[in-house]
Amino acid sequence: MTVITLLTDFGDLDGYPGVMKGVIWTIAPQVQIADISHSISPQNVFQGALTLARSAPFFPPGTVHVAVVDPGVGTHRRPLAMKLGEHYFVGPDNGLFTLVLERAELLGVMVDIVHLDQPDYWLPDVSRVFHGRDIFAPVAAHLSSGVSIEILGTPIINPVRLPVPKPVNNGTGLLGQVIHIDHFGNLSSNIHKDLFTQTRAVAVNIKGKTIDGLVSTYGDRLPGSLVALIDSSGYLSISLVNGDASESLHTTIGDPVELLFL
Amino acid sequence: MTVITLLTDFGDLDGYPGVMKGVIWTIAPQVQIADISHSISPQNVFQGALTLARSAPFFPPGTVHVAVVDPGVGTHRRPLAMKLGEHYFVGPDNGLFTLVLERAELLGVMVDIVHLDQPDYWLPDVSRVFHGRDIFAPVAAHLSSGVSIEILGTPIINPVRLPVPKPVNNGTGLLGQVIHIDHFGNLSSNIHKDLFTQTRAVAVNIKGKTIDGLVSTYGDRLPGSLVALIDSSGYLSISLVNGDASESLHTTIGDPVELLFL
Amino acid sequence: MTVITLLTDFGDLDGYPGVMKGVIWTIAPQVQIADISHSISPQNVFQGALTLARSAPFFPPGTVHVAVVDPGVGTHRRPLAMKLGEHYFVGPDNGLFTLVLERAELLGVMVDIVHLDQPDYWLPDVSRVFHGRDIFAPVAAHLSSGVSIEILGTPIINPVRLPVPKPVNNGTGLLGQVIHIDHFGNLSSNIHKDLFTQTRAVAVNIKGKTIDGLVSTYGDRLPGSLVALIDSSGYLSISLVNGDASESLHTTIGDPVELLFL
Repeated sequence: MTVITLLTDFGDLDGYPGVMKGVIWTIAPQVQIADISHSISPQNVFQGALTLARSAPFFPPGTVHVAVVDPGVGTHRRPLAMKLGEHYFVGPDNGLFTLVLERAELLGVMVDIVHLDQPDYWLPDVSRVFHGRDIFAPVAAHLSSGVSIEILGTPIINPVRLPVPKPVNNGTGLLGQVIHIDHFGNLSSNIHKDLFTQTRAVAVNIKGKTIDGLVSTYGDRLPGSLVALIDSSGYLSISLVNGDASESLHTTIGDPVELLFL
Repeated sequence: MTVITLLTDFGDLDGYPGVMKGVIWTIAPQVQIADISHSISPQNVFQGALTLARSAPFFPPGTVHVAVVDPGVGTHRRPLAMKLGEHYFVGPDNGLFTLVLERAELLGVMVDIVHLDQPDYWLPDVSRVFHGRDIFAPVAAHLSSGVSIEILGTPIINPVRLPVPKPVNNGTGLLGQVIHIDHFGNLSSNIHKDLFTQTRAVAVNIKGKTIDGLVSTYGDRLPGSLVALIDSSGYLSISLVNGDASESLHTTIGDPVELLFL
Repeated sequence: MTVITLLTDFGDLDGYPGVMKGVIWTIAPQVQIADISHSISPQNVFQGALTLARSAPFFPPGTVHVAVVDPGVGTHRRPLAMKLGEHYFVGPDNGLFTLVLERAELLGVMVDIVHLDQPDYWLPDVSRVFHGRDIFAPVAAHLSSGVSIEILGTPIINPVRLPVPKPVNNGTGLLGQVIHIDHFGNLSSNIHKDLFTQTRAVAVNIKGKTIDGLVSTYGDRLPGSLVALIDSSGYLSISLVNGDASESLHTTIGDPVELLFL
């Protein structure tokens, strides 16, 4: 029993993710299917890449992750499948896999990437505007059924990569930025916990506010307090206890976050 | 292993679709369940009918589709089950199945419809306000377990049908209307690609704008361009590349769409 | 084949419920997973408790219900598992299980509760901010795989309970309050049908309006009518036929609802 995950910007109105499940179960009736998110902002490839990278590692070996945030659908952008260690990824070649690929390279696992060019493994009629249904879902189903990746396409080594903003050490600390705002209004930065010693005294500057020290969890301060902590993905994050930090601070993606060493 | 799909206007707040899954898995523990949409606008039977008709064909033979947009729940409106070719449909007799029925008739497949009147196949206590849980979910589970449709009810031949707006040939082209606005703001018309030769030169009029010719996909024009194309269901559709055509044009369902033959 | 349900305030943006499914299927690949709701208002434990109590009874014996509305995650609040009759519940000790526990006690079923304190059944690295992923999902998977509850923790008898507002008999009738507003704007009160004889003549007062008598279902009155009825969970409820009663009456949770005996 294998698992296929779906991550898209399709929303929940029109039945597009459901249709992908129909296609998958027609080919691979036993597979389990998990929705990761269908609420990625339309055409926001980076947000998709980030959510995928934070979710995929928690799935079992053999999982096939289908990701479709695809403004270039039906153009010359290539459809891809990748094997990164024991996980598969299927979707458009537009940078959506940048972060899972970086992680695979960091971990030193085997990386195989193919340009999907074997229509025998697609639906018979391929629309120019819905490759999620017509190419990626059937390819994922075939992968989960044991078809090997090299049969599905031609090896490539140059997938598109997005620029990923990295924090800068400016002498007094690390200067990063907000890269994700979650459902609760928590602000996730690009400053990973491995970049600094957590026993060191720090302060965090964001939107003109200074937060003294890190807490371990939200409940370490009173409701309404602004706190800094390491989030569940290992990144420095700013939260408002029992509230919405993003709303309170009027932040947007890209706002500077500074970690000061004291 | 069979599949049951769920399409409702129940939203995602209250757990109603989850409860239907509990009922289904109590009767048919092995069945796979796919959500098509629970975001149909409250009581919008036509939107439900359209989304169902566009999704159902992509599921495997034997799939049971449960659809519940049901303002008349608990009144004299009949609960129905249908076998249309190799797919089953279960839900209220209010027109929700108009489009899948039209398609079945067009394809010439076998059509069997029953008025569900056998409470042995329902939950023991039937609420007057939640037939999705108490009648349709258990009936679907029994169908997926192999109970045949004629055991579940009495044959009928006159299910309720919604009026379906059809495009008109006005001499210079086809005059249709917007029948669906999707999550991306794409405007789907009721003008099907089979109604005209796609190699013919055309223009599209909508909300006082004229769009010259059809493109094959969004990325054929620059971001911000208004384009006309054939969508993934085969209908003439208007999109704003990397944007929201509905918001930009201030359209609503029913707005005229004109395809001009040049 | 057992079932695990998920109910959280995680929303659908970030992939958190999907990650929990990945963790579960890594441990228990065969289990079916149903989302009950991920749209509980952030930190609204009572709303979670209510939705859980209304949904859980419709799942098969052996179902494991994971509920995570958890403002105290990572603090001294205990992680719990409960066996209430033939259903299991897993989540934080903050009152989220108050209503399922009350119901179990009312029905006289066996109640076993443990403080989860056996990290062997958790993920190896436990974040302080995402116990849904790191503790509750793996514990649920182990329960569904047959690990018995007493192995997972230490028995306790004093789980946290929320105050539950009960209706008051004021001589002329029952004075209750709005405890839930659903996706359709239906107003659910805390006045259960068992508290009064439904053949008795009644009127309902809410927000200065008086509704004469109860109907059996929405369609018993014309669209736009305000009606009172018994909802699918057995509670007195106020609806606007084909409309949104909450919007029309400007109600909020806690607004008084009076059932007058005539």
